[in-house]
Amino acid sequence: MTALSEISTPAFVVDRAIAKANCDRMRAKAQMAGVTFRPHVKTHKTLEGARLQHGGPKGPITVSTLAEAEFFAEAGFDDITWAVPVAPSKLERALGIARKSRLILLVDHPDAFAALEEFAASHDASFDVMLKVDCGYHRAGVDPDARSSVELALSIARSNRLRLHGLLTHAGHSYHARDVDEIVAIANEERDAVARLGAVLADEGVHDLVCSVGSTPTMSVAPIGGVGEIRPGNYIFYDAFQAAIGSCRLSDCAAFVVATVIGVHDERGECIVDAGALALSKDAGPVHVDPETGYGVVCTLDGAPLPARLVSLSQEHGIVRWRGTNARPRIGDRVRIVPNHSCLTAALYGSYLVLDEGAIVEEWHPCRGW
Amino acid sequence: MTALSEISTPAFVVDRAIAKANCDRMRAKAQMAGVTFRPHVKTHKTLEGARLQHGGPKGPITVSTLAEAEFFAEAGFDDITWAVPVAPSKLERALGIARKSRLILLVDHPDAFAALEEFAASHDASFDVMLKVDCGYHRAGVDPDARSSVELALSIARSNRLRLHGLLTHAGHSYHARDVDEIVAIANEERDAVARLGAVLADEGVHDLVCSVGSTPTMSVAPIGGVGEIRPGNYIFYDAFQAAIGSCRLSDCAAFVVATVIGVHDERGECIVDAGALALSKDAGPVHVDPETGYGVVCTLDGAPLPARLVSLSQEHGIVRWRGTNARPRIGDRVRIVPNHSCLTAALYGSYLVLDEGAIVEEWHPCRGW
Repeated sequence: MTALSEISTPAFVVDRAIAKANCDRMRAKAQMAGVTFRPHVKTHKTLEGARLQHGGPKGPITVSTLAEAEFFAEAGFDDITWAVPVAPSKLERALGIARKSRLILLVDHPDAFAALEEFAASHDASFDVMLKVDCGYHRAGVDPDARSSVELALSIARSNRLRLHGLLTHAGHSYHARDVDEIVAIANEERDAVARLGAVLADEGVHDLVCSVGSTPTMSVAPIGGVGEIRPGNYIFYDAFQAAIGSCRLSDCAAFVVATVIGVHDERGECIVDAGALALSKDAGPVHVDPETGYGVVCTLDGAPLPARLVSLSQEHGIVRWRGTNARPRIGDRVRIVPNHSCLTAALYGSYLVLDEGAIVEEWHPCRGW
Repeated sequence: MTALSEISTPAFVVDRAIAKANCDRMRAKAQMAGVTFRPHVKTHKTLEGARLQHGGPKGPITVSTLAEAEFFAEAGFDDITWAVPVAPSKLERALGIARKSRLILLVDHPDAFAALEEFAASHDASFDVMLKVDCGYHRAGVDPDARSSVELALSIARSNRLRLHGLLTHAGHSYHARDVDEIVAIANEERDAVARLGAVLADEGVHDLVCSVGSTPTMSVAPIGGVGEIRPGNYIFYDAFQAAIGSCRLSDCAAFVVATVIGVHDERGECIVDAGALALSKDAGPVHVDPETGYGVVCTLDGAPLPARLVSLSQEHGIVRWRGTNARPRIGDRVRIVPNHSCLTAALYGSYLVLDEGAIVEEWHPCRGW
């Protein structure tokens, strides 16, 4: 049984008990609310993680890439939403997946709808489709209050080749919130955007659309209501960003990087660790909440936060600056670093070490690429 | 023969002719200066890239991880400097590599020296060592003007188990420069730091130390003189950051990401591309030169810069904002994006597509992990 003090660093470690508790809590919340639970798997991209999210061998999932869709379909996950608008050049691959698993595609533009319908007709295929709705994040999605959005939904609903499964939105702007109250307000926008458009479509005769929402901040802190499906993903690991805006406590963060001190510079109160930008990502973190935040939360190997700030990252070096303490590290000491953004940090590792009761008990091998 | 219009996106593409020209130019500069050419391979981490840098099957190289050292040693590269201070827990693996290839280790602290000497004695081994010197970057390295640095160098030189090969510095602060004049001034600091300490050590009877310098900005624009070895790395690809500070022209950038437009939002003058933080990295780029810079330079598929700014990245989405133009993209259009920091962007891909005369002619498979 390998301990954290013995693993090769930098390493990405998942605390299984914490991840399981996060998964159980979110799944129970969805069940209590009586909604479909379709967790996003993009944070971990592993079969083990998806099974922990569902508390069983499979269930509906959300993916961010076709590579994930293929990986999970191959492993028996047979109800997959690809939550990124589809480009025409990707339809051939999507059709290959849709022939073994249910694959729900996203559309948010008439040109994409036209390309999808033409492809389906020329390939004698049909597709499940959700209309992507913009609830205020202003990334992808149609305006829920525009007549053109109603027209696009009606076009999909009336297509012989496409089935309009529902309306999907993502409150990515919940990450701009500074506290729980702001997250709850955004959760209301998220729910109302799809509900409002759904009501207009019902008046037009299109019924039984699934209203799907879900960001980890909104699903973690706001009550679930008025929707049919939720799709949070980051909550399996959480991270320093989520803790800073109030989605979770720091102790709920289930993933961290273990790093070794490779340099000590007492004259400037700094040490160098072997976790740089390739081990942590250059996500700047919750600077809107704490402008003095660093590139992750530096803790003891046991997880107690240290009076230190990770001030700078280059490719393979991290510079940690100590805040007035005599307990400075020595070369060879180890720290754990809770990443700012666990999705981006996890993506830098070919495997994750899974910690349970103080020892590494297994490795998870994520899907990579697109 | 596959064209850029046909590849699956996002993809990391290397323009071989440009990379070769960058490699040939830097190698010729080193040869003209009569210095050892030990290019860093951390940007590309491929055998093909290292061979392009050397214009032949092998040569001295610099690596950033033990995984790279193992990968290149396995392929016959037999003179390797690991340019990150070594932690005691990594010595076992380092010794394994040093038994098949020359492996030069870095030391910048008396505790690391003591651990290395003790390890060497207990394993009946010896190591080549360079003293890491801080020339003003203030990351790793000893103060070139401190008496303690002289003492540490003398300790290494007098060790029975270690061979002091030389003094190594990295002017990472050249990346903070705003133009060529500032880079040249930093190149002088870089050279002077090791030369000054080398002169003191010569007075103490330690002669023939190799003075090794090298960052891509300083080696690209400043004359080489007064040193014995150079170690630039990023120059094989360059990137938008290097172009902004004057290390190269934008047309020298040999690596780029090809992305597809997956959403168009005319109402806010934006489109969405399928290259997000996992396809580009969240490196903020040369904000000290251009506060309005985005997450990469958006170009046509042929490489002509577009009047557009990559304003935001989430995991799999990039938001491109157009600057007052009628030539807006349509869904399915493709762009090339010159990354801010090619080292971090390359690291996100399992393979690179190599472009030559308009077609993808091969794939390079980089080393990953630590």
